[in-house]
Amino acid sequence: MSRFFSKKYKNLEAYTPGEQPRDMQYIKLNTNESPFPPSEGVMEAVSAEVGKLQLYSDPESTAATEALAALYGVKPTEVLLTNGSDEILNFAFMAFCDDEHPIVFPDITYGFYPVFAELNAIPYEKIPLAEDFSVRAEDYIGIHKNIVIANPNAPTGLTLTLDEIEEIVKSNPDCIVIIDEAYVDFGGESAVSLIHQYDNLLVTQTFSKSRSMAGARLGFGIGAESLIADLRTIKYSTNPYNVNRMTAAAGLAAIKENEYYMENCKKIIEAREMTRNALLEMGFDVTNSKANFLFAKSEKISGEELYLKLKQKGVLVRHFKTEKIKEYNRITVGTWEQMETFLARVREILAEKEKNV
Amino acid sequence: MSRFFSKKYKNLEAYTPGEQPRDMQYIKLNTNESPFPPSEGVMEAVSAEVGKLQLYSDPESTAATEALAALYGVKPTEVLLTNGSDEILNFAFMAFCDDEHPIVFPDITYGFYPVFAELNAIPYEKIPLAEDFSVRAEDYIGIHKNIVIANPNAPTGLTLTLDEIEEIVKSNPDCIVIIDEAYVDFGGESAVSLIHQYDNLLVTQTFSKSRSMAGARLGFGIGAESLIADLRTIKYSTNPYNVNRMTAAAGLAAIKENEYYMENCKKIIEAREMTRNALLEMGFDVTNSKANFLFAKSEKISGEELYLKLKQKGVLVRHFKTEKIKEYNRITVGTWEQMETFLARVREILAEKEKNV
Repeated sequence: MSRFFSKKYKNLEAYTPGEQPRDMQYIKLNTNESPFPPSEGVMEAVSAEVGKLQLYSDPESTAATEALAALYGVKPTEVLLTNGSDEILNFAFMAFCDDEHPIVFPDITYGFYPVFAELNAIPYEKIPLAEDFSVRAEDYIGIHKNIVIANPNAPTGLTLTLDEIEEIVKSNPDCIVIIDEAYVDFGGESAVSLIHQYDNLLVTQTFSKSRSMAGARLGFGIGAESLIADLRTIKYSTNPYNVNRMTAAAGLAAIKENEYYMENCKKIIEAREMTRNALLEMGFDVTNSKANFLFAKSEKISGEELYLKLKQKGVLVRHFKTEKIKEYNRITVGTWEQMETFLARVREILAEKEKNV
Repeated sequence: MSRFFSKKYKNLEAYTPGEQPRDMQYIKLNTNESPFPPSEGVMEAVSAEVGKLQLYSDPESTAATEALAALYGVKPTEVLLTNGSDEILNFAFMAFCDDEHPIVFPDITYGFYPVFAELNAIPYEKIPLAEDFSVRAEDYIGIHKNIVIANPNAPTGLTLTLDEIEEIVKSNPDCIVIIDEAYVDFGGESAVSLIHQYDNLLVTQTFSKSRSMAGARLGFGIGAESLIADLRTIKYSTNPYNVNRMTAAAGLAAIKENEYYMENCKKIIEAREMTRNALLEMGFDVTNSKANFLFAKSEKISGEELYLKLKQKGVLVRHFKTEKIKEYNRITVGTWEQMETFLARVREILAEKEKNV
């Protein structure tokens, strides 16, 4: 830290992204990326755009915004594209939270929420999950505080029903409810259908997971026009050209080829269920995940040991040191073949462990 | 504005980007873009990257950061890449300014500085330019406040010398001095050479203008390791993957082909001087710009009228309504041919005006 760093950040602990080691080639099941490449149209659209890079992007990303609005059955003025969904989340924390408008979220969830709160000096509170790691809807009903809930939640993959989300939104009419649907395309129910009824609901999504674009950075928010207008004010006060030309073109092409991505989601769901069943058979506890990852622990091996031994065998998963979940690992669902390899390595590790006892 | 928008932004007026009209094809001399496309290597590098978009970018942009550090003769830990230079500027306002550390800048300069200050609730003060629009170095010496100066300044194109910059930096050792060098490659002197002597100096630059990448969004800061570390903390607390894969690859390729871009800068400088001389001959007042734009007014026609008549004739320039500079227009320097067309249109407009009197 330099002697110039503002004291307002004295409690700020930056977010730690998943590791990206370069020492060898791993089967990467640690950062919830898609195992499938982008569609042909994305490649063509980006190539067509590169020759125009000397010109600023359209700050409104008009074409991609309109296509996205059409896909979700909302108006373009109800959509805002951002540089990944981290950006729309940060914008929402900035726009709607302050000293008098604190925010709450589950104690086990996306690790960035407390960072956004600290960064923006927003008072926040963590609400414990139930014993089975589910978010208890009743804990959020009528609490009259801003709320952010990942649905499906991370790293558990567990979901609230649309009815539960609606109850939460309806019972806190003077507060903003942000539903972070980064993983919704793998089996959750989207709350986008509620945005015309509730002017306090903001839904955020991303192209990173279901649309194979983690490396392109495209996220978005959908909500009432008035909320989107506020978020646009924040955007135009930080970085009007936040979405570059290539990413906007890639996003537009991906929307046009939505079917390809939804097919990939189906494959990932199938591989997830196959993997989950195999882990259950091996005696693992595995949450009923509706995301592109599984969250699992075994009585036979600690979370950290399994993580380390898998890494030695060329398979990366994500282990969190947080006390409540340190016996678990979060395993991104890759291709069927990748998951078979993962399962084979787990079987080996458990067998070696048994032999040594 | 929604009923949820935080009162902390009650004075926030978002930045207004230059217009991007779609009603017809214009000669665009209004947003300081390069008239030259990116180099071949950029196109190839981006195409090679698109097939990997499903994977997150390297949050450190290691390859591009190392190449940039080598080009400028600094260490990679003294460089931070961002999503355009607006982002590194905002990060610097966030990191180093607060209630107790206000910031000052010229009254006529890049319009985003007061927006960043308002956004982050940072007290700020505007220091008037001299009568001839130059930044008076003496106004910033030993003032013991954080400072941001665009050098060359916008929209005037006027520069401070490296000695003047050094005096400002040296005389405010307990405050941060940000030198915004967005336009430095068109004839200014960079202050990067001073960063090893002064731990309170941050230099920011961009690939948008001299490297034909406005549409790719790549900016960077160079400064003492300790300052860069603070800015990284802000980055990892807002958007760790702020630079996407395609932009990082494009940036790396552009650095490898630096010669192409420096040749383009020479062409722009030649076209600038030709245009400036022609405007002077027509009786315009034209600042001695060292940027890729000119700043000019004529007694014969108001700034707004010239802007509007040029637009009717298919040439876009930028007019600001700010009282002090409303008789001027900022004219981006394009190719030699574009500038000849611009000059022909100006001559027509002045001749028509004379006839009607």
